[in-house]
Amino acid sequence: MYDEESIVFEEVRLIWKPDRTSEIPIYKQIADEIERRISYGEYPPGSQLPSERKFAEQLGVNRSTIILAYSELRSLGIIESHTGSGTRVSKDKWEATPRHTPNWKRYAEGGSFLPNLPFLRRIREALQQQPSLIDFASGELGPDLAPVAEINALIRKLPDLSYLGYNDPQGYFPLRQALLSYLEHYRHIHSTESSVLITSGSQQSLYLITQCLLSPGDAVAIEDPSYCYSLPMFQSAGLRLFRLPSDERGVRPEDIRALYKKHRIKMLFLNPTYQNPTGAVLDQERRVQLLDVASELGLPIVEDDPFSLTAYDVRPPLPLKAMDTVGSVLYIGSLSKIAASGLRVGWMVAPRAIAERLADARAQMDFGLSIVPQQVALQFLGSDDFAPHLERLRMKLLYKRDLLVETLQRELADEVTFTVPEGGLHLWCKIRPKVSDARLFEEAIRRGVAFSPGSVYGSDSGYMRLTYARPRTEEIVPGIKLFAEALRSVME
Amino acid sequence: MYDEESIVFEEVRLIWKPDRTSEIPIYKQIADEIERRISYGEYPPGSQLPSERKFAEQLGVNRSTIILAYSELRSLGIIESHTGSGTRVSKDKWEATPRHTPNWKRYAEGGSFLPNLPFLRRIREALQQQPSLIDFASGELGPDLAPVAEINALIRKLPDLSYLGYNDPQGYFPLRQALLSYLEHYRHIHSTESSVLITSGSQQSLYLITQCLLSPGDAVAIEDPSYCYSLPMFQSAGLRLFRLPSDERGVRPEDIRALYKKHRIKMLFLNPTYQNPTGAVLDQERRVQLLDVASELGLPIVEDDPFSLTAYDVRPPLPLKAMDTVGSVLYIGSLSKIAASGLRVGWMVAPRAIAERLADARAQMDFGLSIVPQQVALQFLGSDDFAPHLERLRMKLLYKRDLLVETLQRELADEVTFTVPEGGLHLWCKIRPKVSDARLFEEAIRRGVAFSPGSVYGSDSGYMRLTYARPRTEEIVPGIKLFAEALRSVME
Repeated sequence: MYDEESIVFEEVRLIWKPDRTSEIPIYKQIADEIERRISYGEYPPGSQLPSERKFAEQLGVNRSTIILAYSELRSLGIIESHTGSGTRVSKDKWEATPRHTPNWKRYAEGGSFLPNLPFLRRIREALQQQPSLIDFASGELGPDLAPVAEINALIRKLPDLSYLGYNDPQGYFPLRQALLSYLEHYRHIHSTESSVLITSGSQQSLYLITQCLLSPGDAVAIEDPSYCYSLPMFQSAGLRLFRLPSDERGVRPEDIRALYKKHRIKMLFLNPTYQNPTGAVLDQERRVQLLDVASELGLPIVEDDPFSLTAYDVRPPLPLKAMDTVGSVLYIGSLSKIAASGLRVGWMVAPRAIAERLADARAQMDFGLSIVPQQVALQFLGSDDFAPHLERLRMKLLYKRDLLVETLQRELADEVTFTVPEGGLHLWCKIRPKVSDARLFEEAIRRGVAFSPGSVYGSDSGYMRLTYARPRTEEIVPGIKLFAEALRSVME
Repeated sequence: MYDEESIVFEEVRLIWKPDRTSEIPIYKQIADEIERRISYGEYPPGSQLPSERKFAEQLGVNRSTIILAYSELRSLGIIESHTGSGTRVSKDKWEATPRHTPNWKRYAEGGSFLPNLPFLRRIREALQQQPSLIDFASGELGPDLAPVAEINALIRKLPDLSYLGYNDPQGYFPLRQALLSYLEHYRHIHSTESSVLITSGSQQSLYLITQCLLSPGDAVAIEDPSYCYSLPMFQSAGLRLFRLPSDERGVRPEDIRALYKKHRIKMLFLNPTYQNPTGAVLDQERRVQLLDVASELGLPIVEDDPFSLTAYDVRPPLPLKAMDTVGSVLYIGSLSKIAASGLRVGWMVAPRAIAERLADARAQMDFGLSIVPQQVALQFLGSDDFAPHLERLRMKLLYKRDLLVETLQRELADEVTFTVPEGGLHLWCKIRPKVSDARLFEEAIRRGVAFSPGSVYGSDSGYMRLTYARPRTEEIVPGIKLFAEALRSVME
């Protein structure tokens, strides 16, 4: 039914490789492939080509092979190399008259939108180049936790779509109706169809809020640490971020009042249940106090609630939204962390005026979510598979959490400490020896294991997030052993 | 197979209606429903409720019924009415201590993102309230043109998805591969997987370009008229728009040079084949000249090419991208106008560095397109249904175009003139009598027919766009008759 090998296969195909069985020499195959890519516009005139060393590594050939391939292309006038500026596609090869390619580098660096954090891009690059990497970095369910078989079966029985045109900007109406039951049943949130907006996951919900409800220069408060620090969208929107420290009971309501007084914060971003990355739960008493403070100050709270349904044993407190009597809370949820991130189905519950405003803006960005995944989500939420899947997910996550905790206690009892989370996908760890985050990270990648350095979430160095949901069960022990080797190698 | 009535049904359910068979009086049902919506947070304290007149219209009841319902709620202290500021949800009803709802109005009006044009919001509103409206306004294929049966059949046979996690930020790799064949076969564009970015339709491609490659204050050139004027994203990004007039052969290359000299334009947005809204085709000679000018100036061209495959009889010239030797062109395409806009699958072909930059930004906005519609698009492009569907689409569009043209010539020969397009979905019309755009539009809506006023596309008053692809064939004659009545009524 589900073929894990095909994932790896797909990733590998991303990179072209020379055919070692061919009679055409490898260097010539490489030169031909580069020429093809240049002529097809992948590398316009003036583009930088990879260094000989890096290219040789990517293709798994000797550096001398690349030197020969580049030399061949140079002799044809297709590329040119200059000391200090590397190898570039020739600008004046193609025509007799001088022609200019747009200065794409300048365009790529323009725009108000910041690129992703270097660590995150490095993780993505490493995962692409090395599909066998044991992945404790990606914050999602692994293929053994996602309901892949259930969703495939459901797609085959999907009721016919009667209409394939542009959809309601707030989302497919029957899905919004189904979400009302879901929210009531699982989260004790009462709402109406007009207050629900379907999004392409929590990421898009946050993007819409930061782009459309806040202005450059606005101050907002964020937990410390928080996955929000990993999202350059806050900086891209020109927001000023202020930190809310938290203890074992979550953030302290009095800190919010102080921040408001000092910086006139305009919005509060919280992940109160199994917080990402720490796993902390804001306790019931604090929830009530926090809602009081917010309504006293007229301060909106964005409540991101992706993990509540993963609760292993103890039920977490009700979401803020369920106790919100004055409409302070914008509530965000999705299927990404409880079913499949690749479906890209999320939702927001907001006062009607806000839901309509964000739906209008969102229509301008992408004209709404595809009807097909909305139909899949609708069927899945209503199916007999949904509750048993959640039950299995909780058991499997608990098993993986315990396996990770035991392995760390066995392999790195003195070096790594943590608080064991009661739900969610992540273990937040303190690394006790003083080591360089970047060196540890590169050492780990080199040995075949990836994790997320704490600095990604705005914490001081010496922390990391390990996602036990992502690696397969049988990868957890070897993954931690590799990590232990990496840590010991940089401790010396 | 395909049940057209269900569209209408879904739209109607959007609005709650009182139950006329119930023993509970209508006014009481309405009061209860409003109280429910208020208590669920759809209307937080301080929110404005609809006026009695408007609410009565929406629910199809007498105004006196709403007056009674509001009075009931007022007596309970749930809402309050003040002369001049209408009816609002009470602020101090809910708790003994004073509590504040965030000032949602201010948040909704904040943010750099502009709302959609009033005409477009008016059209959307009218279509929601009056599902029987004959729709010449929406720029998409009607249900009789979209391959609904083919896509439903294909979904039932969809190969199992092996992985439901986050996808490659540039898009599903097998779909990018399939697009290379598609682009080569149908558009004579050679490209590589690394240069293709899958988007959620052309709208998202344009959004990414305007947000990530341009900066506030940058000048860009746009055809006059152009659907780009209908997209507030250009203004939201702070771009200055300059118009390129066009004649029957399309835009004039020398105008681009002049604009560049005067305003240092940074990018050129063109829809060279069956332009939206005019239907004009940029001729071959001008295409070559235009590429020359662009490469002389190092000026990037965004080529939006949604309609080429609808060519009725004559093949249009090759796309600019097929003749682009220096990498000046960012090419945009999608399935929206040739298959189904509700799938939300589009693509961009760009130099590798640009494709990667936009993929990174896009991952921050929505974490990429759902895997399910990408899989559907992959299967559809590769299916035996694809070419016959295109063939049928062309024939049906031609038939609808002819029917619209004949009807206009019969009903409004003196009042409406146009150039007959050779492809695309739209007829661009000049309305010869001097009438008010807004009055004509409201008169038409009142009589049951919608069109797009020319001002939406930046043209002077006295123009309109009629989309013959959207209404069902049997709606075209009655639709134009209703429009003719509306026009005559505002001429007097």
